[in-house]
Amino acid sequence: MSSFNFTIEAECPETWARAGTIQTPHGTIQTPIFMPVGTQATVKSVAPEELHAAGAQIILANTYHLMLRPGSALIDSFGGLHSFMQWHGPILTDSGGFQVWSLGHLRKLNEDGVVFKSHIDGSLHTLTPERVMQIEAEIGADIILPLDICAPYPCSPKEASKAMEWTHRWEERALVEKEKQRPEQTLFGIVQGAFEPELRAESARVIGNMPFQGLSIGGLSVGEPKEEMWGMLKHVTPNLPRDKPRHLLGVGSPEDLVVGVGLGMDMFDCVLPTRVARHGGLFTRDGRVSIKGARFRTTRGPIEEGCDCYTCQHYSAAYVNHLARAEEQLYFRLGSIHNIRFMLRLAGQLRQSIIDGTYPAFRDEFLARYVPASEKVREAQREKWKEARDKRA
Amino acid sequence: MSSFNFTIEAECPETWARAGTIQTPHGTIQTPIFMPVGTQATVKSVAPEELHAAGAQIILANTYHLMLRPGSALIDSFGGLHSFMQWHGPILTDSGGFQVWSLGHLRKLNEDGVVFKSHIDGSLHTLTPERVMQIEAEIGADIILPLDICAPYPCSPKEASKAMEWTHRWEERALVEKEKQRPEQTLFGIVQGAFEPELRAESARVIGNMPFQGLSIGGLSVGEPKEEMWGMLKHVTPNLPRDKPRHLLGVGSPEDLVVGVGLGMDMFDCVLPTRVARHGGLFTRDGRVSIKGARFRTTRGPIEEGCDCYTCQHYSAAYVNHLARAEEQLYFRLGSIHNIRFMLRLAGQLRQSIIDGTYPAFRDEFLARYVPASEKVREAQREKWKEARDKRA
Repeated sequence: MSSFNFTIEAECPETWARAGTIQTPHGTIQTPIFMPVGTQATVKSVAPEELHAAGAQIILANTYHLMLRPGSALIDSFGGLHSFMQWHGPILTDSGGFQVWSLGHLRKLNEDGVVFKSHIDGSLHTLTPERVMQIEAEIGADIILPLDICAPYPCSPKEASKAMEWTHRWEERALVEKEKQRPEQTLFGIVQGAFEPELRAESARVIGNMPFQGLSIGGLSVGEPKEEMWGMLKHVTPNLPRDKPRHLLGVGSPEDLVVGVGLGMDMFDCVLPTRVARHGGLFTRDGRVSIKGARFRTTRGPIEEGCDCYTCQHYSAAYVNHLARAEEQLYFRLGSIHNIRFMLRLAGQLRQSIIDGTYPAFRDEFLARYVPASEKVREAQREKWKEARDKRA
Repeated sequence: MSSFNFTIEAECPETWARAGTIQTPHGTIQTPIFMPVGTQATVKSVAPEELHAAGAQIILANTYHLMLRPGSALIDSFGGLHSFMQWHGPILTDSGGFQVWSLGHLRKLNEDGVVFKSHIDGSLHTLTPERVMQIEAEIGADIILPLDICAPYPCSPKEASKAMEWTHRWEERALVEKEKQRPEQTLFGIVQGAFEPELRAESARVIGNMPFQGLSIGGLSVGEPKEEMWGMLKHVTPNLPRDKPRHLLGVGSPEDLVVGVGLGMDMFDCVLPTRVARHGGLFTRDGRVSIKGARFRTTRGPIEEGCDCYTCQHYSAAYVNHLARAEEQLYFRLGSIHNIRFMLRLAGQLRQSIIDGTYPAFRDEFLARYVPASEKVREAQREKWKEARDKRA
């Protein structure tokens, strides 16, 4: 049976924030936690021991990508993803649902499952709730997710309802199949319901009552304004069981982490920190900065004073600026490590603030300092993109 | 004054091979040695501590690239390249000559120096023998090279002679200027002479008699058949002083290292091992292999059994194959480390064989095993490129 376990150490009375501990066969996770994303069995440009050094406690990998390349049977023959990629801590795999829906016209849905064309070679594949459990059993992550349907944004209440009902039926099938596969794996349920408050509440109740060991909130951060996303969580969290970990799928940024924790989320995953890093955007307590900016050209100190990441401990901001401007591969690694460490340090600070009973103050102070500065950088970036587009036109 | 020193520990009587030790202000180098190339103040995708772990004793950096970006004055303000890039071992900088000639119509030559347009932003720059010494002083490498003229291949004897004479005059000017700059740096001379045996012999005698502390052989590996390159060295080595280290500029491959040592070369540098690695070509004692090949898809063992590199010690060939096929950034690092370690292990084996008096047997055995297998891989690659080209046509 599963050696999965979740305990709550502290809760923040004025909010839904809590600090907990998750036990998995590959180790312990202290929540709230950010999970770096290793889409293709590698967190882009970062080696496993560097993830470990950055404080990563669990990483996420993508079932859709891994089933296509190198294939789940191959990973199984290597004793699972942990030994294949040499990451020996906990792993969570998503179900591939979100990626398949993103394929648009390349996929076809029916009650049994979904047929889609590979983005790599155009080959046809079928995913059913059962097949996904088999694939995830072969990949062998500690925590796995069932096949779900992510409704588009925006969509009609009818469409949203249909996608949710369908997802619920598929999740029941996943629960049955999972017991035939590898019972030691932990299956989380996925809450859907698009942007309909009643549906979100209903999905939380229905999935929360099924024998899942944790709950992922899907279908958010799909293009909607942030306020709408947070609004939805207010209908979800109160309808979820208190004693199961809650995972906000595919979210987020530093500010998402800080806000999401207060809305009852324990686990977060997103490619944003590493993707943004590759484009030169680095996180600091005073907001996102662009490392390619002229102000870093001669900076003798680290990217952020006091940062304990490998990059800041070893290199000047000027050197990182040089590597980024020259588009050197070492930059992608150094930038990614910095942002991953930032997210994990932030998760640790959030946890501590919950234990200390100071989370609301921490949140407010962080947002006031971080968000306006980051918005300025993003605005400048948008301007640059617009200019580049206008030039092309 | 310079703390540079070169001693010879062993020589191979039937060949010109020798094993020596070079002392520099940043540490000791045991020769023969391969120098990984860090063009833009970084050996592409590899961090300094990984170079160190792979056995790198000295690296090369490119004056042309660094003067344009980030600029030599900036590097100087950081206390030189060692501290800017956090590589604390010996560094050699080339003179930028070769890169400037490669610019073709973007540069204009006169007796004083050369004016060229930056490949980055088209800005105009002037290099003179004196200016190069100033730039290299600011970069602060342990070993520096003077501005030279690399004749094109093929070229007329008259052209070759003119380029050589010109280079000799420039080198005299470099010697004078270098003493005004940083006397603790070690200046090597560059032997030119294109593919004219008499000119090569003359250049070796002239430059060998100037007060340089080492000799680089330039203008080779510029498109000529290998036999022609080796043929030229036979006119160079006997005319060089025995007691100064000899550096074969911009060469080579594993087989180049093995052959070049027998022709009296002590130091080698080339982007080939890392560039080839980025395209999937990895070195093994049985020849170059293509890691993307189907045979590695399920290989549980390392790329090469018994290899002591980080990559082979930590990952299966199947995982490296997966990363390479998926074009993941971690692959570039793992492949580069493997090839760098291969070159440095090979240099160590060559050194030991010279000390043991077995170099000729080692050379013959290596070439018989390595070259035919590698040729097969290169042939297959050429076929693939031809197919791809035919498809486009």
